[in-house]
Amino acid sequence: MRVRIVGTGLIGASVGLALQASGHEVTLEDASPTACALARDIGAGHLPGPDEPEPDVVVVGAPPDVTGEVVLTQLARFPRATVTDVASVKRAVYADVVAGGGDLARYVGSHPMAGRELSGAIRARRDLFEGRPWVVVPSEHSEPERIDMIVGLAEATGAAVTRMDSVTHDEAVAAVSHVPQIASSLVAARLRGLPVESVALAGQGVRDVTRLAASDATLWTKILMGNADSVGMVLSDLVADLQQVADALAVVGADASSEAPGARATLAQAMVAGNSGYERLPGKHGESASAYSVVTVAVPDEPGALGRLFTEMGEESINLEDLRLEHEIGRPIGVAEIFVQPHLAEPLATALKRRGWRIYA
Amino acid sequence: MRVRIVGTGLIGASVGLALQASGHEVTLEDASPTACALARDIGAGHLPGPDEPEPDVVVVGAPPDVTGEVVLTQLARFPRATVTDVASVKRAVYADVVAGGGDLARYVGSHPMAGRELSGAIRARRDLFEGRPWVVVPSEHSEPERIDMIVGLAEATGAAVTRMDSVTHDEAVAAVSHVPQIASSLVAARLRGLPVESVALAGQGVRDVTRLAASDATLWTKILMGNADSVGMVLSDLVADLQQVADALAVVGADASSEAPGARATLAQAMVAGNSGYERLPGKHGESASAYSVVTVAVPDEPGALGRLFTEMGEESINLEDLRLEHEIGRPIGVAEIFVQPHLAEPLATALKRRGWRIYA
Repeated sequence: MRVRIVGTGLIGASVGLALQASGHEVTLEDASPTACALARDIGAGHLPGPDEPEPDVVVVGAPPDVTGEVVLTQLARFPRATVTDVASVKRAVYADVVAGGGDLARYVGSHPMAGRELSGAIRARRDLFEGRPWVVVPSEHSEPERIDMIVGLAEATGAAVTRMDSVTHDEAVAAVSHVPQIASSLVAARLRGLPVESVALAGQGVRDVTRLAASDATLWTKILMGNADSVGMVLSDLVADLQQVADALAVVGADASSEAPGARATLAQAMVAGNSGYERLPGKHGESASAYSVVTVAVPDEPGALGRLFTEMGEESINLEDLRLEHEIGRPIGVAEIFVQPHLAEPLATALKRRGWRIYA
Repeated sequence: MRVRIVGTGLIGASVGLALQASGHEVTLEDASPTACALARDIGAGHLPGPDEPEPDVVVVGAPPDVTGEVVLTQLARFPRATVTDVASVKRAVYADVVAGGGDLARYVGSHPMAGRELSGAIRARRDLFEGRPWVVVPSEHSEPERIDMIVGLAEATGAAVTRMDSVTHDEAVAAVSHVPQIASSLVAARLRGLPVESVALAGQGVRDVTRLAASDATLWTKILMGNADSVGMVLSDLVADLQQVADALAVVGADASSEAPGARATLAQAMVAGNSGYERLPGKHGESASAYSVVTVAVPDEPGALGRLFTEMGEESINLEDLRLEHEIGRPIGVAEIFVQPHLAEPLATALKRRGWRIYA
């Protein structure tokens, strides 16, 4: 297929890299000639020549607030091409295409779930989409063979393709991406007013909760603007839940000596609801996260120590499922938590102990 | 010093292990004889004999809702001993000790910031407190030499001791621990009602935000009950911030075609506030988290691959500051993000490329 990428940021350039690698012919465009040249230089595709034939597919990789407009331009410009986009919101883009009188038969939205805190073509990776969900979001007007085309394109990048309508998509990303982003940002915002010695008490927990708060503020403002309805609904539910907890805390605070059984029940229910929600997250390779056992090992903070650990694990032919490296603030020692299949935990711990590693069972 | 540990859970048993290792004489007690024997068996101390002399220090490691009561019992039982506790809330415990007429001169509260999602003596680690903050929280009535005793005890575990009054402590942990826990739990709670295919879109971001949601619900209910005032205040501020964002989203949602500049500004400010708060978190060894550069490397999901990577890093004498291992759902490949001092990023990437690793710049 001839594929035109319009917008060569992280996602556009990565799509180019992946499609070129799987034999498609990719041409590149961007409002910024520099960004476009950079994408070409890293091998994401070539620049269209004066007699360039019409592409079969156009992939629009623009900020969410202008995506609809760019889709309309491309539909009008290439009257036979199928046009898709990679914006992380889908209803708003579709509404813009409808409002602009675009040829809906040739438009098939999509959303590769492969963003990072990083951005720009320089961060592009050929395998950015490898095994990641890529949601294809056709409308009722999309022609079946054009839907198949976009599914094929997504599969060519190595992505795990799933199909959804735009409402389901927008509600899903509101809950698994957009509201977590807002919560992370605003929990982090609470740290602004704290004395330095109070912030110094921060441990791994708050770091994890607030990691997303480092994300690009401008991009996220556009994403939230573009999914206002769905995010608003999930956020309102979250606010109501938090308000219930705040109310329960106020009851307890007003009379610390009281047992406040109703308030206690509210707090306990919130914590248990969190346990249940967390359990729903798919683990690595689609398995449940709680399916693994953890072996905890002390790792001296010196060159080669982690290498020795994993080399020796390799010698024992034990494969790790996940790894968390925990640092001790102010001390030159780390703790590695090694997640393995449950039946491997005991042999791994025994083997590492025998080899002289300090293990925390 | 003779130290009596009353309550041999994760924290109590770890204190025992650490103090024994630094030459103190530790005796153990727990309401559960089994838990106590387990703590003894792993080397956290010995069981008090019939003629056991009075301890110099009693460390109470009880759930936060009964800590005050146990402190009172120990103050009465050992009329010369200094009594401390390790509960993660401090004002409520102190209030209970005051209300019970305890000898305030001999009570010095403390809080080692070293909890985990795990619990029980079996998880105890001698170096659980190594380099972690340990907050010593004396009252105005605490005798100076007894404060010094508790500071010395905390230092003997390897902890980084800091001193705070109970209000400052409770407000600090509300912001850096208790409210992040609530937010994490309730963001996770929003995942409960989602269709399976929507949860399947979850990426690393929501995983990080909700990791704390796996924590023990009963313990956390007690912690929140015990710090209701401070948590309530921080939580109310968070709810107000979230409500502002929800209101802004409602404005946008009500008229998608409008520019809604006020609403956009609210969203942008929330995101920027998150950036600023996040920046305040201390990085490893007390440095700013943003002080590091990241080198991204493809790691085949096979025994020994990570080992080879780190062995080769060791051979290049390049030390890593932090590591994040990113998995690709449904595909047998991992991506390691290696954080190093900025001046080491380029040499590391070059060296690894030369050795045949796939690097994502």
